[in-house]
Amino acid sequence: MLYNHWALKVLLYFFMLVNLSLAIFEDPAVYALPIWVRLQLPHRDTLTLVDMIIYGALKAANYYGVRWSRVLRPLLLVNVTEGRQLRRAFRSIRNALPQIFYVFLLFMFSILIFALMALKLLGKRGLTNINGTPYFTSYLEIMFDLYVLVTTANSPDVMMPAYNANFFFAVFFIVYILINTYIFMSVFLAVVYNNYKKYLKEEVRQLVRAKRHKMVRAFGVLQEQREEGGEPVVTQASWNQLVRLVQPNLSNAHRELLWSVSDDKNQGAIGKVAFVQLADLLNIEIITIKSRPHPLQSLCPSLYQSAPSKLLCKLVQHRAFVMVYDLIILVNAVFIGLDEENPMIANSEWVFLALYILEILLKLYVFEPRVFFSKHSFWNWFDTIIVISALIATTVNSVMKSSSHFSSRQILDIVFILRVLRLIRVVDSIKRFRTIINTLIRIGPAILTFGQLIIVVYYIFAMVGMELFKRKVTFYEQSSTDPAKAYCGNPLLNGTDFAKLNYCRNNFNDVVSSFILLVELTVVNQWHDILYSGFATVTHISARIFFVLFHIIVVIVILNIFVAFVLEAFFVEYSVDKSDLQTSLERKIEELELAVAQYVTLQRVTHNSQPQYLHCHIPDRTLQHHLCVCFVSGYRTVDALLQRIFEADLDPEDFAENDDPEARGNENFANPLFSHA
Amino acid sequence: MLYNHWALKVLLYFFMLVNLSLAIFEDPAVYALPIWVRLQLPHRDTLTLVDMIIYGALKAANYYGVRWSRVLRPLLLVNVTEGRQLRRAFRSIRNALPQIFYVFLLFMFSILIFALMALKLLGKRGLTNINGTPYFTSYLEIMFDLYVLVTTANSPDVMMPAYNANFFFAVFFIVYILINTYIFMSVFLAVVYNNYKKYLKEEVRQLVRAKRHKMVRAFGVLQEQREEGGEPVVTQASWNQLVRLVQPNLSNAHRELLWSVSDDKNQGAIGKVAFVQLADLLNIEIITIKSRPHPLQSLCPSLYQSAPSKLLCKLVQHRAFVMVYDLIILVNAVFIGLDEENPMIANSEWVFLALYILEILLKLYVFEPRVFFSKHSFWNWFDTIIVISALIATTVNSVMKSSSHFSSRQILDIVFILRVLRLIRVVDSIKRFRTIINTLIRIGPAILTFGQLIIVVYYIFAMVGMELFKRKVTFYEQSSTDPAKAYCGNPLLNGTDFAKLNYCRNNFNDVVSSFILLVELTVVNQWHDILYSGFATVTHISARIFFVLFHIIVVIVILNIFVAFVLEAFFVEYSVDKSDLQTSLERKIEELELAVAQYVTLQRVTHNSQPQYLHCHIPDRTLQHHLCVCFVSGYRTVDALLQRIFEADLDPEDFAENDDPEARGNENFANPLFSHA
Repeated sequence: MLYNHWALKVLLYFFMLVNLSLAIFEDPAVYALPIWVRLQLPHRDTLTLVDMIIYGALKAANYYGVRWSRVLRPLLLVNVTEGRQLRRAFRSIRNALPQIFYVFLLFMFSILIFALMALKLLGKRGLTNINGTPYFTSYLEIMFDLYVLVTTANSPDVMMPAYNANFFFAVFFIVYILINTYIFMSVFLAVVYNNYKKYLKEEVRQLVRAKRHKMVRAFGVLQEQREEGGEPVVTQASWNQLVRLVQPNLSNAHRELLWSVSDDKNQGAIGKVAFVQLADLLNIEIITIKSRPHPLQSLCPSLYQSAPSKLLCKLVQHRAFVMVYDLIILVNAVFIGLDEENPMIANSEWVFLALYILEILLKLYVFEPRVFFSKHSFWNWFDTIIVISALIATTVNSVMKSSSHFSSRQILDIVFILRVLRLIRVVDSIKRFRTIINTLIRIGPAILTFGQLIIVVYYIFAMVGMELFKRKVTFYEQSSTDPAKAYCGNPLLNGTDFAKLNYCRNNFNDVVSSFILLVELTVVNQWHDILYSGFATVTHISARIFFVLFHIIVVIVILNIFVAFVLEAFFVEYSVDKSDLQTSLERKIEELELAVAQYVTLQRVTHNSQPQYLHCHIPDRTLQHHLCVCFVSGYRTVDALLQRIFEADLDPEDFAENDDPEARGNENFANPLFSHA
Repeated sequence: MLYNHWALKVLLYFFMLVNLSLAIFEDPAVYALPIWVRLQLPHRDTLTLVDMIIYGALKAANYYGVRWSRVLRPLLLVNVTEGRQLRRAFRSIRNALPQIFYVFLLFMFSILIFALMALKLLGKRGLTNINGTPYFTSYLEIMFDLYVLVTTANSPDVMMPAYNANFFFAVFFIVYILINTYIFMSVFLAVVYNNYKKYLKEEVRQLVRAKRHKMVRAFGVLQEQREEGGEPVVTQASWNQLVRLVQPNLSNAHRELLWSVSDDKNQGAIGKVAFVQLADLLNIEIITIKSRPHPLQSLCPSLYQSAPSKLLCKLVQHRAFVMVYDLIILVNAVFIGLDEENPMIANSEWVFLALYILEILLKLYVFEPRVFFSKHSFWNWFDTIIVISALIATTVNSVMKSSSHFSSRQILDIVFILRVLRLIRVVDSIKRFRTIINTLIRIGPAILTFGQLIIVVYYIFAMVGMELFKRKVTFYEQSSTDPAKAYCGNPLLNGTDFAKLNYCRNNFNDVVSSFILLVELTVVNQWHDILYSGFATVTHISARIFFVLFHIIVVIVILNIFVAFVLEAFFVEYSVDKSDLQTSLERKIEELELAVAQYVTLQRVTHNSQPQYLHCHIPDRTLQHHLCVCFVSGYRTVDALLQRIFEADLDPEDFAENDDPEARGNENFANPLFSHA
């Protein structure tokens, strides 16, 4: 309990953040710190300490030293308990690598063959590139050009000299693009997808087995023999105690619901099979909202129940109210697009702000505030925060403007962003859009895992890149008049595309620039310009290895896994099947609806345009002061989503009572947090 | 039978080709024809005739006329019987469009919001583009720039001015790229994939039902009542007659095998269920090879059976023989890469040619020629054709060189290409590569369907593009000294990127150039340069609509379907399941192996590294003069592959005896060719 206390967790993450953000202060630094702080900072663990001592000694002796431990730093992220998803992603990638490697070899072989053909066909014709250099004469250059063509970054430039000479040569490039860019890249996606899924399925299977095994052990601890010779059972009392311990925030109604699902026959005790389901049951999110009267009704019931008040409530809940506000948003969008120097338009902003605030106040008048601001009312929270922030920022801006005749650019920027963000709300009014957005929000946590993965890989490449290329390229502010600005402070870049395209800021001089540059490299376009005329010019031609390696790892492997995961998660969210547990919970709620008096109306509003998912549509428009009990098909954890994806392939009765020696479950999936296991 | 005669089919395809290739001769033409031919050509069908009359009348009256029927011409491809796959692809796309449309709307909404934010944040800062024009000041321009950024074509250029001003603006672009380029594009793939698959599954289901329904009707015609009150059956005699009629080329052994699979209990007649399977059985490809003695053995048995001859056979069949030739290929690759002006290296080519010919002769000495050149020995055919062509081309080249001291560039090119193609053979020696290549070859026919689809769409866009942009941009040969060459013959292009990058040949002046340009647009990179400074400059800014429309249709919809199909087909080929029919056929072959004397050895060499597919590995290395009966997991038709993909979702016992009025099967899938149905 102490280990999992939230304060310790916050502390852990805080130190992880400090550790990773060291890159901001270390040489090459975004903000340079005094020397003693820099010496103090890395003294936290032995590995870095050893590295520090070696580095210090080398530096003192005036040798060139490299801080190699910096590259390993993001691996700390992987090794904490919460890095489980990340570890799993790494393991799946590692397992899929051999298959990917063979396709990659074949792909490289294809490039070799095409390069050889290009050399023979085009090398001897005396063609020239656009800058007058000979075209396709060096085998290595051709191979590299063709590799870049796979990323499409140098299309159609690489083909133009040959195409200008004879249009039959275009056929060569079209065949190349068809085979390597389209077919091979699709095969990469297929192989990555297939293998990643295969290993992930195996991992999830082991995870589920480990979870069940733990539940069986827990059952062994809690079990009682009710009657002589009968099956061992867990009584409701000990079950309640357990659930209260594991999830203290669970409401009584929710706990009772779960119990009634487990104890289907109302015997006051459950067997092993039902007990093991508990972990999965807790992973299904259920929203329970108590039906409370509006506070105004308690305060002044006569006013709130009066005819005009009732009419107002009716108006606000009418469809037309939503449509009027959608129209207001559209008009607002036009006004935002117009020139705000015009005083009439500048003042119109106050009108719109007033209208939005009026909307929120009206809704708060009609709906119970605690329902309106319930945990899952994403759009209500979004609206309110945006409108209030916009009100504050606009007021501050006006006050500053009128008092000192000075308007802060930053505050204005914030005002503009908030104004535009307000428009997003219109999406929620259109059902089809809501479906897509909800799906995206639901697969969001899983996408974040890939965010972590990308950050780890970026961090490593940024560290290596900074070591290799720091201060080779200098960025000069626009106001600078230094003649070196024309060639990014490096005479070698004089006249190159890199300098001409004004790419000086794409450099490895600090960690922030490095990350932005790596994003540009991930997007792929112009990467040959960044590298060819850029970093290869200022260092050595072998600098290409760094960039090609980055492309292979990030674009070919990780992005494909990302696409595979989005595809898979999307299919599950779109699919028609429902998990068995969800069905039985749903049936139970229906039964309880009749049995328990306090469950007045079960509001079944399907968010997803597919009736099999029950969603609680809490927003303003539909809620009618009832208690609302319903399912949210979202899962609490990424694990639960993964289990759902592979549910069809898992055997529900597969209890591994004895530890399978092959299943590394207990080692890899050991997790002290019960709610996560 | 007459309708399906091969000669009539060839004629049909010939006229379709002539019709489509009219574009080569029509204005703007690759080869201009005399006026009377041009007048004669389009008089083939009424639609074109009407169009022609209108066009001629307008032209005669000196009005501007557009030949609108040209755009519709590729639709003829869709409407022939063999365009079934294409029609299905079109129908699936049409059905998936509504879903794609909603995601597209949301995606456009996202671009609108980001563009509005960019206008407010960046438009007022007085930033300039690299060419000095104001940065992000027009809302429409920003939207277009951001749309281009989704295709990554203008990354990172579009971001550099903002990034140079303040690095926080980079965050705006990174968020934009993350949401729109990565997440939305993945969602597009997911939605296209999901919907396309859903509708395709429905189509395949209908196809299978229609097929079964026809088989049931055929059964009704052929059935006999063998005994009073018994089930109606089809006797072996009428079954044989039917199969002989449908597939006259089927060997007797093959037919007997199929019969023994259908008539499992050896009753001499089959019931309805077994009869209906016939169509599926015929779609499983089986290779039967008769075991024949080597011709040399018949001619001079004493010599062929002598000890040196036997040793030679042993040597050629040894693993080392393959490895030696792989080594020779590698050495050859190095020699090709070297400068062929060196006489030693030029002469080495003869040595390699001699070695390759020796290899083929040796193999023909050891293996029975008809087995060596059997229909499915792809690599043997490939080797022999390449080596013999290379021999002829090299000889012709040498003769021309020595006789007239003139070497033809074309023949040299062919020689070079053939030399390089020879190297591909090395792939066949590595098992892992063979697996991947075989998978690709097997999904090849399905990929060709998309080839047709792409050609139809390209053709339509080429026709429209030629009408809109013909002769706006002129390409001058490299030898030309015309000053107009610097601006592609159009003063409007003076100093633009389009002219500077030497893109003059990217134009719509004839159908070949148009197709190559459309391929470049499909690859996406630089499309904003081709369009921005190119065709929008010489015509009107609204020319963008053409290019954006092309991007949406080809890149967002069709390429995603292509990727989806490759993924799906790859998964099936990689998957572990096998169809039921294949299993029973396999079992039967095993039984027959014991029962029928002539089936000496069943050679089970798994090409696919997965034991569930039986492949006949006929190539040189393993065949031992036996009769070989085995499966090829490939399917004869794309339909069969599709049926396999969705097999898990099809009910094997679903006989639609009565025509389902909803199933448009009979209308859409009516096919006079029995073997296809």
